[in-house]
Amino acid sequence: MNPFLELLLFLATLIYSYLEAFVKLFVPVKRKSVSGELVLITGAGHGVGRATAFEFAKRHSRLVLWDINKHGVEDTAAECERLGATVQAFVVDCSKREEIYSAAEKVKKEIGDISILVNNAGVITAADLLSTQDHQVERMFEVNILAHIWVRATTIFIPLFVWERCCGGMLRPALLSYRSSKFAAVGFHKALTEELSTLGKDGVKTTCLCPVFINTGFVKNPSTRLGKILEVEEVVEALMEGILTNQKMVFVPSHLSIALLSEMVRKKHINDEVLCYEEQHFALMVVKDMVWQHRETLE
Amino acid sequence: MNPFLELLLFLATLIYSYLEAFVKLFVPVKRKSVSGELVLITGAGHGVGRATAFEFAKRHSRLVLWDINKHGVEDTAAECERLGATVQAFVVDCSKREEIYSAAEKVKKEIGDISILVNNAGVITAADLLSTQDHQVERMFEVNILAHIWVRATTIFIPLFVWERCCGGMLRPALLSYRSSKFAAVGFHKALTEELSTLGKDGVKTTCLCPVFINTGFVKNPSTRLGKILEVEEVVEALMEGILTNQKMVFVPSHLSIALLSEMVRKKHINDEVLCYEEQHFALMVVKDMVWQHRETLE
Repeated sequence: MNPFLELLLFLATLIYSYLEAFVKLFVPVKRKSVSGELVLITGAGHGVGRATAFEFAKRHSRLVLWDINKHGVEDTAAECERLGATVQAFVVDCSKREEIYSAAEKVKKEIGDISILVNNAGVITAADLLSTQDHQVERMFEVNILAHIWVRATTIFIPLFVWERCCGGMLRPALLSYRSSKFAAVGFHKALTEELSTLGKDGVKTTCLCPVFINTGFVKNPSTRLGKILEVEEVVEALMEGILTNQKMVFVPSHLSIALLSEMVRKKHINDEVLCYEEQHFALMVVKDMVWQHRETLE
Repeated sequence: MNPFLELLLFLATLIYSYLEAFVKLFVPVKRKSVSGELVLITGAGHGVGRATAFEFAKRHSRLVLWDINKHGVEDTAAECERLGATVQAFVVDCSKREEIYSAAEKVKKEIGDISILVNNAGVITAADLLSTQDHQVERMFEVNILAHIWVRATTIFIPLFVWERCCGGMLRPALLSYRSSKFAAVGFHKALTEELSTLGKDGVKTTCLCPVFINTGFVKNPSTRLGKILEVEEVVEALMEGILTNQKMVFVPSHLSIALLSEMVRKKHINDEVLCYEEQHFALMVVKDMVWQHRETLE
């Protein structure tokens, strides 16, 4: 579609979505019951995880609490019991795949199938630059994302739903992690770009390439609903243009961004999906991303 | 600011950005020279990496090529030499931190400081669901994102720029990886949600929580330019509301999304930053994300 038509359509649907959201303000919202549900909360020994456990306890859920900190998780469990909930607490280090697998197996065998999973455990290394070690970087990735994959892939949902149903030679499972890792790369690019700008290092340029599927021979018979499969040459042409003119983001094809944005707005509610456009963008496609730097002036 | 004012401002700036982009269509773009630059390309033995190497070779750059595949990278190097470039080829497995470190050290000592880095190496496991192994998931993360961190942190830019300059007790370096890992988690949530929807598994609900900085005690004296620091209770209240009403994305504070979006549009060009709003959103803030599932109907 013509980019300008796309833009008009986008604006119209954006306004429509807002009107819809406004009307919904006056429609009462239905809340479901979580009474009796078996809820697993990771990182339940502290902060948001602990407070979330209390809320489920008040609503008569059955709780399974995980945390690396024994005292923390036991304190949370005691308080939840005081609130009337059935609780089981486990000491689990979510940076360790094997610990997650063995705890998940134990929960499955001894307690039952989890029906609500709150992946709350998270790590941030609050150290200054020079004292941030490689193993700390790895731990952030292990806890903040890989743990989600291990927890999910073991006991709980995936075996029941996805794993048994959709294995007709499709790429789906691999793509969950693949897309996720590509998101991470784009996030890294964004954070680095912002960082350099904050530091006034304007001589360092960054370019991130986001094409749709490229035919590089890695996947047989590639297909995408976002138009044609790209050839390597046209992607590299766009990349070189981006590098030589210092573009931060390079979309291939270039009209992709607005086309996808319009589609998202048409499909979903403004607060829900539109603002998550970029993620959806990357979730929808097989993405090749590329971070690029150039030192023009080395002060 | 009032959300409706924010929306109006957003629409106005969106249209302005498009007009600006339209005018720029008629302004000639300046391309910089990359002649003589020392360019490192990872994954140069195939596809986009190889084709990109050819383009730099044609523009008289000096090339350092990495690939896990010896034959591939040597073929690329030979062709680049034929095009008149100086080339050095290395066999490097970008899933291995130590290999990256030792190769980067070697480049630095024997060839010099890289001025352009193309992080092209990427992995996708093109296997069906049941045959996707844990180590394949890990490899995707190692190559698709962690390699970017290791390459960058060693020889090239970071030591010269960031690492020596901004270590005044700030969180910045840690946040690069942290933000990146959180992006990955949000991406995983998006991909999973889409996956479940594609499979028609409407009984499984997912909720992703994206608050600004929460005062949970992990970081001392937290601060953010996005308004007040949140308390655990208000975040959990929003989370529970999201869970009980099946919201996919929960922003805290809730007007955050549109406020940030407006800011992005005001600051930057449409194709560059607006469409990357969500990433910017996560890159700007310390984000706590949470993926959540609920099995209402187990078929």
